[in-house]
Amino acid sequence: MFEQLGLIGCGLMGGSFALALKKAGLVKRVVGYSKSPSTTERARQLGVIDVEAPSALLAAAGADIVLLAVPVAATEATLKSIKHLVTPRMLIMDVGSTKTDVVQAARSALRDQIGSFVPAHPITGKEVAGVEHADADLYVGSQVVLTPTERTLTVQLQQAREVWQALGCQVHSMSPEAHDATLATVSHLPHLLAFAMMQSVLSQPQADATLALAGPGFRDFTRIAASDPKIWRDILLANREQVLTQSRQFRQALQNLEQLMEQDDGQALQDRLTLASAARAHWRMAAPQMAAATPSDSLGS
Amino acid sequence: MFEQLGLIGCGLMGGSFALALKKAGLVKRVVGYSKSPSTTERARQLGVIDVEAPSALLAAAGADIVLLAVPVAATEATLKSIKHLVTPRMLIMDVGSTKTDVVQAARSALRDQIGSFVPAHPITGKEVAGVEHADADLYVGSQVVLTPTERTLTVQLQQAREVWQALGCQVHSMSPEAHDATLATVSHLPHLLAFAMMQSVLSQPQADATLALAGPGFRDFTRIAASDPKIWRDILLANREQVLTQSRQFRQALQNLEQLMEQDDGQALQDRLTLASAARAHWRMAAPQMAAATPSDSLGS
Repeated sequence: MFEQLGLIGCGLMGGSFALALKKAGLVKRVVGYSKSPSTTERARQLGVIDVEAPSALLAAAGADIVLLAVPVAATEATLKSIKHLVTPRMLIMDVGSTKTDVVQAARSALRDQIGSFVPAHPITGKEVAGVEHADADLYVGSQVVLTPTERTLTVQLQQAREVWQALGCQVHSMSPEAHDATLATVSHLPHLLAFAMMQSVLSQPQADATLALAGPGFRDFTRIAASDPKIWRDILLANREQVLTQSRQFRQALQNLEQLMEQDDGQALQDRLTLASAARAHWRMAAPQMAAATPSDSLGS
Repeated sequence: MFEQLGLIGCGLMGGSFALALKKAGLVKRVVGYSKSPSTTERARQLGVIDVEAPSALLAAAGADIVLLAVPVAATEATLKSIKHLVTPRMLIMDVGSTKTDVVQAARSALRDQIGSFVPAHPITGKEVAGVEHADADLYVGSQVVLTPTERTLTVQLQQAREVWQALGCQVHSMSPEAHDATLATVSHLPHLLAFAMMQSVLSQPQADATLALAGPGFRDFTRIAASDPKIWRDILLANREQVLTQSRQFRQALQNLEQLMEQDDGQALQDRLTLASAARAHWRMAAPQMAAATPSDSLGS
């Protein structure tokens, strides 16, 4: 049980974390700060946070757990602004979708205090942003990747693991580089492709008439194209090399399929589609044990 | 109200049509045929059809409405096999995802009897195939495109329109070429991309470990990659020119985004993502009036 969560960034991800922690009975009080005062106020009105803080520093003051839920590009500045309050007993986490850049930002901002920081990426989300969509169950059943540095304190790492598990997550641990390569494949590339798909449709002469006939396949395929453009600009640039590698590889796979179509090679085309279809049909999203939503006594603070 | 549906092809689409027609009280008896005798038997056991026919011809015999729900490549042979039973009072439809080839097949197979044939494409489906997944509500709320020829009889076209509307569909009418161009964009291309995405993931050195971290974005984006490879081989080849045009255009859109990433041009990248995101956020699948599931007296046969 934590005494106080300092929430920096009261959007969808941060707000949902606060609600989840409260629902699980893991925190007594949430002090929140968002760059936009109206967001902070809205978060309090919605009961996502208990107290509005006028700065990131004051949100962190007195907290035993701090969550940064800001765009990844803002990580370094945010950590710098709370740096002189960081203690070895404080657990600091982020929820950024890229980790190499976040770890680098943390090294640069926190220096000797980096031991308190556990970089975290809960792999979930919604295509809508904002505290209005915050959801106490957003994290239930999702996977969380922790990318500790060689200086991360064992007690903080263990605490981080227990917090996410208590919220119903399955926790993994890997290097920031391995995380970014994997996420480029299964998350960043699909987002890039969905954005490109919408761009391609919009460039049609009769885009509206075309979109009017789109069905459920299109709906699901393009759902993530409605994601926040600023957040995704940051992610795509932060993980640029990995995403570009994946995108080029994807274009090659697509061109190979085009070639089989051009050659009217039905058998080879069917063989490729069969491999793809079988792989997708057998894939299942990892489903962790649903241990969520009950207070956990094993969490020291 | 129809006396008898002759169902040729008792899979997901055909089986769902039979169940929907029965649920709406629009047909007294369903006689079904599938190429595989075990499928026909299974369809009867499941109550999807009432009587098993040993051939397409015998499924059509005595029917006042015939539905072809076979792979598009089998359209011509199937129509030929029932040709000498076709009367001007019979309504014949298909559910194929491509229409230029289907119309051509119908011209060649039916010749003077083509007036009874109304090419139809209900834009719906599931990523699972087979009569076991047949669903009386599969068509509710979906859009149906009819692509009549210049020789299609008015009474058949009107009947076709009323049948689909009675099943809760929104009915459109356009040329086969316009249909194929539009569907290449909103359906065939997304399927091709989803297949290519799975191919690309499978070519990773650690495909399984990578897939283990995939989340809900990936799940929805790749859902259609689990579609039936044989059906999609046929669709991609039948509508090859349109799909290739769309695929090349998509690759160009993707490369443009890659270029902005390479140039680290955050503002231009954000502008593009914003257009794509806004377009997707505002798009809604057309929702027809839910007039379904009540018997319609306006349907003459």
